[in-house]
Amino acid sequence: MTSTSPLTRTPPSTPASAAVPVDPARSDRRGAGVDDVRLSPTGFWGRRQLVNGEATIAHCLDWIERLDWLENIDRVARRETTVERAGWQFSDSEIYKLLEAMAWELGRRDDPALEATFASVVGRVAAAQDDDGYLGTAFGHPGLPERYSDLGMGHELYNLGHLLQAAVARVRTRGEDALVEVARRAADHVCREFGADGRDGICGHPEIEVGLAEFGRALGEPRYVEQARLFVDRRGHGSLPVPPLQSAEYFQDDTPVLDAEALRGHAVRALYLSAGAVDVAVDGGDDALLEALRRQWDHTVERRTYLTGGMGSRHQDEGFGEDFELPADRGYCETCAGVGSVMFSWRLYLATGEVRYVDLIERTLFNVVATSPASDGRSFFYANPLHQREAGAESTDGVNTRAEGGTRAPWFEVSCCPTNVARTLASLPAYVAALDGDTAVLLQYADGRVHIGDVLLDVQTRYPDDGVIRIEILDAPAHESTVRLRVPAWANDAHLVEPDSDARPVEPGWVDVRRRFTAGDVITLDLRITPRFTFPDPRVDAVRGTVAVERGPLVLCLESVDLPDGVTIDDVAVDTTAAPVATIDGATVSGVVVTSGERAPGALPYGANAETPTPTSDLDIALVPYHRWAERGPATMRVFIPTADGRNTTAATDGR
Amino acid sequence: MTSTSPLTRTPPSTPASAAVPVDPARSDRRGAGVDDVRLSPTGFWGRRQLVNGEATIAHCLDWIERLDWLENIDRVARRETTVERAGWQFSDSEIYKLLEAMAWELGRRDDPALEATFASVVGRVAAAQDDDGYLGTAFGHPGLPERYSDLGMGHELYNLGHLLQAAVARVRTRGEDALVEVARRAADHVCREFGADGRDGICGHPEIEVGLAEFGRALGEPRYVEQARLFVDRRGHGSLPVPPLQSAEYFQDDTPVLDAEALRGHAVRALYLSAGAVDVAVDGGDDALLEALRRQWDHTVERRTYLTGGMGSRHQDEGFGEDFELPADRGYCETCAGVGSVMFSWRLYLATGEVRYVDLIERTLFNVVATSPASDGRSFFYANPLHQREAGAESTDGVNTRAEGGTRAPWFEVSCCPTNVARTLASLPAYVAALDGDTAVLLQYADGRVHIGDVLLDVQTRYPDDGVIRIEILDAPAHESTVRLRVPAWANDAHLVEPDSDARPVEPGWVDVRRRFTAGDVITLDLRITPRFTFPDPRVDAVRGTVAVERGPLVLCLESVDLPDGVTIDDVAVDTTAAPVATIDGATVSGVVVTSGERAPGALPYGANAETPTPTSDLDIALVPYHRWAERGPATMRVFIPTADGRNTTAATDGR
Repeated sequence: MTSTSPLTRTPPSTPASAAVPVDPARSDRRGAGVDDVRLSPTGFWGRRQLVNGEATIAHCLDWIERLDWLENIDRVARRETTVERAGWQFSDSEIYKLLEAMAWELGRRDDPALEATFASVVGRVAAAQDDDGYLGTAFGHPGLPERYSDLGMGHELYNLGHLLQAAVARVRTRGEDALVEVARRAADHVCREFGADGRDGICGHPEIEVGLAEFGRALGEPRYVEQARLFVDRRGHGSLPVPPLQSAEYFQDDTPVLDAEALRGHAVRALYLSAGAVDVAVDGGDDALLEALRRQWDHTVERRTYLTGGMGSRHQDEGFGEDFELPADRGYCETCAGVGSVMFSWRLYLATGEVRYVDLIERTLFNVVATSPASDGRSFFYANPLHQREAGAESTDGVNTRAEGGTRAPWFEVSCCPTNVARTLASLPAYVAALDGDTAVLLQYADGRVHIGDVLLDVQTRYPDDGVIRIEILDAPAHESTVRLRVPAWANDAHLVEPDSDARPVEPGWVDVRRRFTAGDVITLDLRITPRFTFPDPRVDAVRGTVAVERGPLVLCLESVDLPDGVTIDDVAVDTTAAPVATIDGATVSGVVVTSGERAPGALPYGANAETPTPTSDLDIALVPYHRWAERGPATMRVFIPTADGRNTTAATDGR
Repeated sequence: MTSTSPLTRTPPSTPASAAVPVDPARSDRRGAGVDDVRLSPTGFWGRRQLVNGEATIAHCLDWIERLDWLENIDRVARRETTVERAGWQFSDSEIYKLLEAMAWELGRRDDPALEATFASVVGRVAAAQDDDGYLGTAFGHPGLPERYSDLGMGHELYNLGHLLQAAVARVRTRGEDALVEVARRAADHVCREFGADGRDGICGHPEIEVGLAEFGRALGEPRYVEQARLFVDRRGHGSLPVPPLQSAEYFQDDTPVLDAEALRGHAVRALYLSAGAVDVAVDGGDDALLEALRRQWDHTVERRTYLTGGMGSRHQDEGFGEDFELPADRGYCETCAGVGSVMFSWRLYLATGEVRYVDLIERTLFNVVATSPASDGRSFFYANPLHQREAGAESTDGVNTRAEGGTRAPWFEVSCCPTNVARTLASLPAYVAALDGDTAVLLQYADGRVHIGDVLLDVQTRYPDDGVIRIEILDAPAHESTVRLRVPAWANDAHLVEPDSDARPVEPGWVDVRRRFTAGDVITLDLRITPRFTFPDPRVDAVRGTVAVERGPLVLCLESVDLPDGVTIDDVAVDTTAAPVATIDGATVSGVVVTSGERAPGALPYGANAETPTPTSDLDIALVPYHRWAERGPATMRVFIPTADGRNTTAATDGR
């Protein structure tokens, strides 16, 4: 089931054993196993996956040890919990998310050293488990508060949810082992404690739902899924005590999932809950719940989502804002919310087969998830705003106590994002392709080999730098079969070349190539990536009169380091009558340097006369991919740039 | 020193006993005493002062009793502090701010019942004071943490600062009494504990500085002022432990006051600190410190202040944002920050005599301080955003646990604002006029009688509904004297009529009328209030392409209740080529109803084509004063409205 070379052809795994993070009980679709897709180490995602395996996982483990978060576990095992505990009450979850990352990594390649590390951590975790299956370092032991005495903020079930997700990764890649056994005992404990006859409680931070549902699927234990359903059903009835200065909306305890109109409150909580609720709805055949979640997704994407796919516009409560409250500068867009958004959208894709969910996954992966880690995989963005007014500090080797700020940090006081990035990149192959009925679907374009169903594909592409995707059939059944390709919503000049055919235009959405394939057949999809202007909806007040530039799936941005001396990001405006011009991986737009009027000292920034900035000189403005901003030292940055005429002018772009 | 009728002429008080909140040791200026200005009960401010005295003070006391915040005091007196304490660690300060409000109120009028209430509360406070002068209910007694064991967040000195300000109000209106004695013992305790040879500490929430400085001035005890200077000097060196997920900037412990460039961090903290630092700078003749504070004021007003005068653009940390980070929808503009801004600007006016400080005070009083209380004085805004996207809840009689929201609430979990409004309105006369050398200066225009220096004026005006201010000299010295009037910065068509003269135009700033006045002389200032367009600086991204309408000192706003059925505040745009037309106290502007383009379900609010909203019909848009928004039930609201052509167009207004 594993392979040492990413490009070695592997025998098809049977669907029953697919190494996938999500496998609904009722679905016509299943993603590729993590071992079914071999990303080329030179491609966009393959490179990141390699760095993740070689650097990020070890980096995270190092910090977890350094800060004594594993020592917390050992102290429970040694019954020494009366000394002061290290870290937040949710620090255990970082260990579990890292175990999940390791498990997916080990599901793709043999690595005896990593396997030994994994086993060692699992051994320490197992030693800390109570006889009745309870596992936790912040409650329920001498010197600590009682178990479940703070359901609102205690994160005990949240931590266990991540344990279960790690065990899912393990059981689906290597089968049952010590971690799976620990997880099973923990899940049994949760069902006993919080079952229909148990405590009528929920966890302030959703995650147990998605963990239980998938672990139940993985082990064939429907009662775990049933317990997840109980947690989803119990939510929204105001049962959690609301902390001072908080609201029930913060942890989605204000309105039942079935009745909510949009995602709201703490973004990661809302997204994890939604993902778990889709699992429950799908396995239970609860169409009303599924429809409610689809409506909430629509509303949230239409009115509460950034161009990057980022979600959560408020630092306050790390939360969603109201409709169209999408400030570029204070956009929080937590990396973990990006991960949660992928989790939610992925489950809706599996449930429906609709392309828009996959489109948002692509947008979020390229512009949120890929933005977080530095190229060396050892520092991370927590928040991903679309406008940086003040340059961040020089990067340091210390803990960044605050989530904000223009500089990737090695670790955070609340350090949820690094391990979330690690587990997502380690399991990325699962989102690249899917089997829809007997149709092989290519969802994301990445250089590498894809084995899906009975089809083995060699994908060659420099995507997203280039839009040409060459798909060679290496193996396919003798009978007629279908390869389905996704044409992203932005690709409205895409062309397809089927074997022995001429290029033909294809529309955004799904495009099927159905035939009796023979080895060596080549399908070429040309998404014709050129930079394009993107204008905000007029209701997004915060970016009125501005324009962004996108290039394929990438959002571009202006960094101060690319401007001439003396010109700041506030001094330029874009001439939208001239089309943007492609550079190697970004774009150049025509612009002007503008000068704002002078005001008297101490005068408010408001005046009787409109002050359209005065153009003083022309300037070509170089834009780079947002995902790699701040890699050249501290900088200011903006995605949305004012237009030279001060309004949303219809663009003369490349004809689209 | 008191009078039962607001319009009864009172004998001049001697300057030495002026009932003012601020009286620098070195200054050519002093504000009017609270008993020197008799506001007419039908005028804008007189009405509010009346409601404050008749309703708000009792309302606040009722809530303070109801929530056991005075019971906390009694428990200390009874030595029963081992039971759980009510409220936050700063709840004592609400009692002291209310005492300050009562003291100013009693400084203007006799009210035996209020006097008895005052004495009763003071008696309870006095009974809780420790033998060594310490006073506090959250630390330093059995069952509570040790004194000063949490300087960062404990608010012990903050509370005492408010006690001292209350005592200032008392000693300057009624002389020494029990409250003043309690305050003196507390101040002595603070000096012993935190003096040059004592603890090298500061309080996480500034306020003790301003309290000590003024109490020292009022009692002629320079060592209290010196202690205030010590606190100011010690700040900014990172001595306070930074709470989790916080930063030293939050409580201005990142940079010494002398070195800071702008106000930053928690807005109320920053403003109280700045006010105290001005006191210290002025009394100590520290010109460098004063200059630093003036620069910070300039920077803050130029780049971090709302059109309303509101300060603090972040809910997160209730803090200032970065330069030009001034979102309308999430503008926090805490009422207390408005009070703090008045405190800071007032001290800078006294120090310099410059008109711009008084201009900002007017803007802030009318648009922040006056906005907070409902017309009945029994509910309050805590935050004062300039755009309400979702209508607030129906008002309730309960505690509003969150500061946000579109509905005035009777009380808050953190209820700093109601008592801050109360003490400000009770002392409002002190800001209406000043004596600058021997010049009588009229700073704010309010219907009533003003006794300043040797001059007694009868001011008749419907300001701000009307710009005509008729000033009759009731009494003046036999020799030549000067009456100085403020022409607000916005009044660029103002005219003045001196006795026996024709109207002449006057420029914004100070205008002096110097002559040998005789009783019956009339000066008429006509500020010619007409509604006017105000455009944001292009660097304020959040409101690009919009316009606001002001009318004299008032910011106007659009409330949804004034729109036709089916039209929302997001559906209208303003035609800035037509001048706004005055209504009784607001304005009407020409506008259009616009329709935004439809997007596909689940589509992001960004697109390839600019979507300038399409005008579908003309509409006169009625605007009302911002200070009275949300008085007609839950509504959405906006101050800045998109312009019909989508950009900052130079306005064809009334010729200015």
